Formats: sequence, structure tokens, C-alpha cells
Amino acid sequence: MPRPLTVAAAQLGPIARDEPRASAVARMVALMEKAHARGAGLVVFPEAALTAFFPHWWIDDPAELESHFERAMPSKDTAPLFTRARELGVAFHLGYSEIDGDKRFNTAILVGADGMLLSKYRKVHLPGHREHEPWRPFQNLEKRYFDRGDLGWPVVGALAGRVGMCICNDRRWPEVWRILGLQNAELVVLGYNTPQNDPRAPELDHLQDFHNHLSLQAGAYQNGTYVVAAAKAGLEEGCEMIGGSCVVAPTGEILAVSATRGDEVVAADIDFDRCAEIRRNIFNFAEHRQPDLYGPIAAGAPAPRLSAIEMTESEPAGG
Amino acid sequence: MPRPLTVAAAQLGPIARDEPRASAVARMVALMEKAHARGAGLVVFPEAALTAFFPHWWIDDPAELESHFERAMPSKDTAPLFTRARELGVAFHLGYSEIDGDKRFNTAILVGADGMLLSKYRKVHLPGHREHEPWRPFQNLEKRYFDRGDLGWPVVGALAGRVGMCICNDRRWPEVWRILGLQNAELVVLGYNTPQNDPRAPELDHLQDFHNHLSLQAGAYQNGTYVVAAAKAGLEEGCEMIGGSCVVAPTGEILAVSATRGDEVVAADIDFDRCAEIRRNIFNFAEHRQPDLYGPIAAGAPAPRLSAIEMTESEPAGG
Repeated sequence: MPRPLTVAAAQLGPIARDEPRASAVARMVALMEKAHARGAGLVVFPEAALTAFFPHWWIDDPAELESHFERAMPSKDTAPLFTRARELGVAFHLGYSEIDGDKRFNTAILVGADGMLLSKYRKVHLPGHREHEPWRPFQNLEKRYFDRGDLGWPVVGALAGRVGMCICNDRRWPEVWRILGLQNAELVVLGYNTPQNDPRAPELDHLQDFHNHLSLQAGAYQNGTYVVAAAKAGLEEGCEMIGGSCVVAPTGEILAVSATRGDEVVAADIDFDRCAEIRRNIFNFAEHRQPDLYGPIAAGAPAPRLSAIEMTESEPAGG
Repeated sequence: MPRPLTVAAAQLGPIARDEPRASAVARMVALMEKAHARGAGLVVFPEAALTAFFPHWWIDDPAELESHFERAMPSKDTAPLFTRARELGVAFHLGYSEIDGDKRFNTAILVGADGMLLSKYRKVHLPGHREHEPWRPFQNLEKRYFDRGDLGWPVVGALAGRVGMCICNDRRWPEVWRILGLQNAELVVLGYNTPQNDPRAPELDHLQDFHNHLSLQAGAYQNGTYVVAAAKAGLEEGCEMIGGSCVVAPTGEILAVSATRGDEVVAADIDFDRCAEIRRNIFNFAEHRQPDLYGPIAAGAPAPRLSAIEMTESEPAGG
């Protein structure tokens, strides 16, 4: 029996450092209306969608840093998004920076068409570095500004399927996809802020879009799940970020992809039942996985990488 | 300091059921000479390269089944390959079916330019089914004819780099790539026999080449390793098999790829030092992996896949 759904990735162009949340929310409402007009029952907004991506610069004033975080969700500023979603009957995914007690998280929520919270995730794989590195054209301070997520990688029954979540850099790690796949995720939603340029490895800059899609396509195929991924894109406060927002099928095929680095909606019709084409056959986990031999993946400290031994410092590319 | 090497994938076209090993070996010697003329220091031959891929048909006569296996390596029939390799100063990878005591394995060896054994691997992820399924146009009886490999996924220092091994269906499982990556593999060599058609999921047939390359490219990128993958290809005893033999860079880029489904050599110049571009940055494991959260991957029995619950039988696509 088909379980159809139309899904949309709502890509955002840059958000200025001084752009009020109300402006970002108004842009998202407009994208939501566009997605709804295309029949979407789910709209996926990017990671940290309410502000400029502030880990790209050094902030030593705690009050200024905290001004980028949310203490309540919904809040006065974000309420219009929740209201419009209820009016349209659209579920949505929203990434934002969250303060909870003395912890700060890079968080995303999945909200049902009735406005109720369906699922929540806090980013685990925080890329970048902890200290100020003035030689860089932009910083990548997620390891400094955020705590590691403490909610695992959740998968919930929602929208007639099983929906899992991760955020940005998480998508590059096959472990994340597998843990979602082992929970029978049929759709994974995520947002990202990925710089076009990696100051540590500029020889890879031309491959950023390819690596984004390669990670999403492999995660989808190897676990038999749909993916909706939404970028914050374009030149934001001196940092150019990739677009490439997309919907990916359980076969790894890209069903829809953005063509700009600005505000843009891409949508595709999916059918959760098509996940079974992969899951019953090539990736039937119960028949074919060999978990008793996978121990090294979950083992404590990894051996230093051969090529890392000579290093004086180390740090990954952004997003 | 660069560590250059020229590597070649030596794809084989079909091997007839009644083709003598000496004929297959002569074809491989010719491919090795072609690869050497292109400067290759390593030639990778396919999985089970000495015979037709017999798991594609039902064999109930034990003597006939065992006639496809090797009891010695090198043997009288395979010695010419070892001899020519030593003469040319070329290392090589060879897949074959191995009997060891009362066990039967789908095996591959890595042999140095001096003819000495550098590494050996026995396939772990055996696809297919155990019983005769007469409705199929061809069988996929690896689970019946082979024991699960018992040598882990080895990585050895060789050819100025670190070389890991896996075989065919192994390449679709990100766990395999990660276990090789955790051992600092800089080059992974493998062979495959992959049917063009999956009788259980014909709607995926047109994606077989894509899925082959997607798996290889993701494994390379996410672990910062080169890959050389060699197919047995073409129409063999009623079963059409994909080609797509290739060399993949640690960036996931395909550097060279075959254009036929027959005997063919593709070669590329690699430099092991380029692995560091990936390993020092985006996939610096020591900095960024979170193994304390990866436990579910190595946990005992996986939960049944949602879509598998309704199934009466289950089985994966070939190779």
C-alpha cells in the first residue's frame, strides 16, 4: 500500500548579522507558502535558520554570543512560523541554537501539521576548532560554542513513515546513517551551513557540492531511506556557503535539487513504501550484517591516523 | 614527500564454464603485460578470477563444486601469473575460491613484485541465499558454497603505502570501509562479480553501475583512501554482469573507469600522500569521531527492519 508524501527543502540565502529574527521568520513563512502551493506536507528549513551562522566568527562577549540562542520554542519571534504551519496543515523541520540550563546546543525540531513537537535532535558531530585562529578568513567555532548533543539520533513514527534527524556535519559520518537505519528510518531530515572554502584544504574547495551529495546519496542508499536536506547558502558575512538543497531517494538518486544560493524551494513526491525495494534485498540487515565483526567501529580511542602523526594541529573543514 | 604509484584494474570479460584455468591465467598474463606497459606497479584482478562465477548456478555434485576451488596457490595452472609478475616486477591482487581443510572461502591475495604473499583476505559479507530457487534465471548461492571469512579485514604496509582488502558485496557496507579506515588504509583493492539484473528487485537494475560507484566513492571519501576495483563483466553462462572497473581517489573522484564489459585495463597515477588532504581535515578521526555513541552498530541482533516484518523470505541482490 503506497504511503505517499510531498516533501520540500526550503533553502535560505544568507542572513545578515544584524537581520532580526522576525525577518528570517518572514522569509521562512514565504517559503512555506510556496512549498504548500506545490503540495508539500513537510517543509525542511536549514540548520541554525534564525540567525547568521555565528560560529564563523570569534565572539568573546558572552551576552553577544547568547543573543544567537533561543531560550523558548516557539517564541514571540518564531510563533508566526508555527501559526502559519497550522493554518496550512504543513509539518516542518527547523534548526536553531538552543540554550538549556547551562548547556548550549545546535538543535533541530520536527513539528507536526497540528503544531505539536514530533521529535527533537541536538547535533553530535561538531566540526571545527575551539580556539581563535586569526589566520583564517572565517572561523569554525562549533566545538567552542556548542555542547555535544545528548539525545542520540532519534527516529519517530510520523507523517505515515519513520522519520530520523541529524544536522550538517553529521551527514558525512556513515555511523550516523547506520544508527538511523538500524531504527528503520524511512526519511532523514537535516539542515546544513557548509562553507564553499576550507582554509585548511583549499585543494578540495571545488568538490564541496560533490561531497555534500555523495554523503547524502550514500547514506540514503546504504540504509534505504529518503533524505531531505536544506542549506543556508550564499555569501553570508564574508563566508560563501554551498547550496545544493535536495531530496534524495532510497536508491541514492537525487529527485530534486536547488539551482541558486538564495531563498528557494525544491519539492518531490515520495512514497515511503519504496524504501522496501532496498531494505528487502541488497540491504536486508537481519540477513546480511555481521555485527559481531564491527566492534572496532564502536571501540574507544581510534588509532592515530598514519598521516596525522606528523601533524602539529588538526581540524576539519566546515559544515 | 610524495609516494607515487601507478595502479591498474584488470577487468575480465566472461569466463566460460568449460574454460580451463590455464586459459583464464593466459588472459590475465596478457592484461598484466598491458598494465606494465602503462607503468603499473600493481595490477588488481577480479573476485574468483580463475573460473566462471559458479554461485550463479545450482551444483549438487560435491566433486563438481570442488572443481572450482584451489587447494594450492600458486598451483601448476596459476604459476605462470606469479612467474610473469616477478619478471615484470609487478605486484598483483588475485581473487579465487579456496579450500582449506573442511572450509571453503571466497578469497583474495595480494602478491608482491617479488612473488611473496603480502596479504590475504576471505570474504565476510556473502550475499544471496542457501537453497535452490528454481524460479530464478540464475542463482546466487554464495551463502551455500562459502564459509564466512575468518581473517578480518587486513591492512598491511606495502607498495610504500598501507593496503587493505575486501571483496565484492563487502564494498556496499560502510562498516567494512570504516574498519579499513581505522587501520589507516591508504589503498583498498577488491574484485567483484555483480549481476546486471536482480530477479528480486528488477526495478533497481538500471542503477547497478551507479550503486557500484556510489559505494566505492563514499568508502574512499569517508575514509580518505584510494580504491582499485576490478570486475568480471559481461554475459557469462546466461548471467550478464556489470563492468565499471575503476580507480577512485581519496576525494571520491573516479580517476579511471572501464568502457567495455570485456578484458580491459584501466590505470591511474596515485600518490599515497594525498590521502592526508582528507584525513587531516574533514575526516580527522581522533578529533571528530564519537565512538562512545556508535554502540548500536556493533550490537548483537539488529531490530527487524520495519519493511521486513511482512516478508516471507528475504535475500539480497547479487555481488
